[in-house]
Amino acid sequence: MVRIKQVAIVGGTHGNELTGVYLVNKFTHSPHLVQRQSFNTITMLGNPPAFKQVTRYVEKDLNRCFLKDDLNNLELDTIEEKRAKEINQTLGPKGNSQVDFILDLHSTSANMGLSIILVNQKPFNLKVAAYLSAINPAVKIYSWTEPGKENCFLNSLCDRGFSIEVGAVSPGSLNAAIFQQTEQLIYQMLDYLDANNRGNSGEQTNNINIYEHLGVVDYPKNSAGEITAMIHPQLQGRDYEPLNPGDPMFMTFDGKTIFYEGEYTVYPLFINEVAYYEKGIAMCLTQKKMIEVNY
Amino acid sequence: MVRIKQVAIVGGTHGNELTGVYLVNKFTHSPHLVQRQSFNTITMLGNPPAFKQVTRYVEKDLNRCFLKDDLNNLELDTIEEKRAKEINQTLGPKGNSQVDFILDLHSTSANMGLSIILVNQKPFNLKVAAYLSAINPAVKIYSWTEPGKENCFLNSLCDRGFSIEVGAVSPGSLNAAIFQQTEQLIYQMLDYLDANNRGNSGEQTNNINIYEHLGVVDYPKNSAGEITAMIHPQLQGRDYEPLNPGDPMFMTFDGKTIFYEGEYTVYPLFINEVAYYEKGIAMCLTQKKMIEVNY
Repeated sequence: MVRIKQVAIVGGTHGNELTGVYLVNKFTHSPHLVQRQSFNTITMLGNPPAFKQVTRYVEKDLNRCFLKDDLNNLELDTIEEKRAKEINQTLGPKGNSQVDFILDLHSTSANMGLSIILVNQKPFNLKVAAYLSAINPAVKIYSWTEPGKENCFLNSLCDRGFSIEVGAVSPGSLNAAIFQQTEQLIYQMLDYLDANNRGNSGEQTNNINIYEHLGVVDYPKNSAGEITAMIHPQLQGRDYEPLNPGDPMFMTFDGKTIFYEGEYTVYPLFINEVAYYEKGIAMCLTQKKMIEVNY
Repeated sequence: MVRIKQVAIVGGTHGNELTGVYLVNKFTHSPHLVQRQSFNTITMLGNPPAFKQVTRYVEKDLNRCFLKDDLNNLELDTIEEKRAKEINQTLGPKGNSQVDFILDLHSTSANMGLSIILVNQKPFNLKVAAYLSAINPAVKIYSWTEPGKENCFLNSLCDRGFSIEVGAVSPGSLNAAIFQQTEQLIYQMLDYLDANNRGNSGEQTNNINIYEHLGVVDYPKNSAGEITAMIHPQLQGRDYEPLNPGDPMFMTFDGKTIFYEGEYTVYPLFINEVAYYEKGIAMCLTQKKMIEVNY
């Protein structure tokens, strides 16, 4: 049985995702809210300089700075690369972490509702995610793993844990309903970890849907590198819904529809995420898979 | 009769409000879309350096740089103060502008739908706004004037014109449906200006609602200057709806409700606008007034 002794809750890994920042502030001022009898919880603001500017990052996306080689490379010294090394010292080292579970809090301008993002499919993570999705059907599970590729997210410091990604919330703002739903989900998760430590879990079995990452779709661009289309109105806000071959995907500035030309049904996520414009990414595509999990 | 000879359409006065930026790009590449037989239309990107960074502004909010004294003060030399002087040379000078009508395109993370923002209540502006609101009931009219105070918006360069403020759209992103509605509204406006030039207007009378600016409401803060509450879930997204004495207004991070304690019903706008967090502003309050307008 997995026994969790130390949990870390991180908010503001992206400085303009205020839901996580203000939840971590709240927990830091009222630690009893996140302590449980069977384990200790620490809280951490991921990227304070970025929060000060209310930007996602100052020099580099912190949540892409956790590759092992990068953490060990002292020549990488942007604000975020240095901060990643500090976090690796506090929570890591990667592969042999001092904490047993990391919860990283994110928000998105996409209509992702209450999402759990897994960076691996270790049984314990599936079990916690399955429990949360069973007691709250609004909770969706997105597995963002790329076979053969080391994960570079903060969550990858520790085998156990995941991020909670909530939306739609504009970066740099708060939405009270989403704030409260996220807070509730965190308490449910902590209670479950506590129950698991006492052996009070694992008696239920459930089929859960996992949305497995397939790849990203870029915005259409012209030869000058400028985007030439927007997310189609019929796709906007429809994260986790099926996109079938022939369905509208983009609309050009001239009003022409670009259709999805794939061969099978996929489930787009992070549709129209603001932070992905600079990467040229319009959405992520996933496949839906049902698995049976004991929790 | 007012005769319009030169219209200016400005987008990207705020660099991360992409609806206006991409509409102006479209019009610049296809000028026939905004030309009409009886007048000429020029298009302009308001703040190119801010658009390049996809930020509202680089050093100072450009749409607060158009006070006469500031335009004449050569010591004010931030990127935006210099840009305001350039725009004043191209479209102004303020008080004696070379153009007859300025349309400034904005977007907001608040649920403002299709809003016209007047910086004065000159009869011609009311007439154009009344026409647009009569043919499309989704169009709302917000009069943001403060008696005795000179207006500092770009629109103030010319007595005639207004801004179109559309939302909810996250800054730094595009929403295709809102893009198309805004484009449609611009064409309707240009067609009306053209009809007016030919004398084909003024035969209709209608009662229209104007939402007149009363003031702003700040976020509750603690002694350290940190916000302590969010827009209440019952108020979130309810721009242009009545807020009555005793209605929920904010929710603290501890889940306590703060009620509206005013003495009469008001109509909040720009509720939870991202760009106003740095100013500490949670919303603008307005009063609803019905006036009769010929158009």
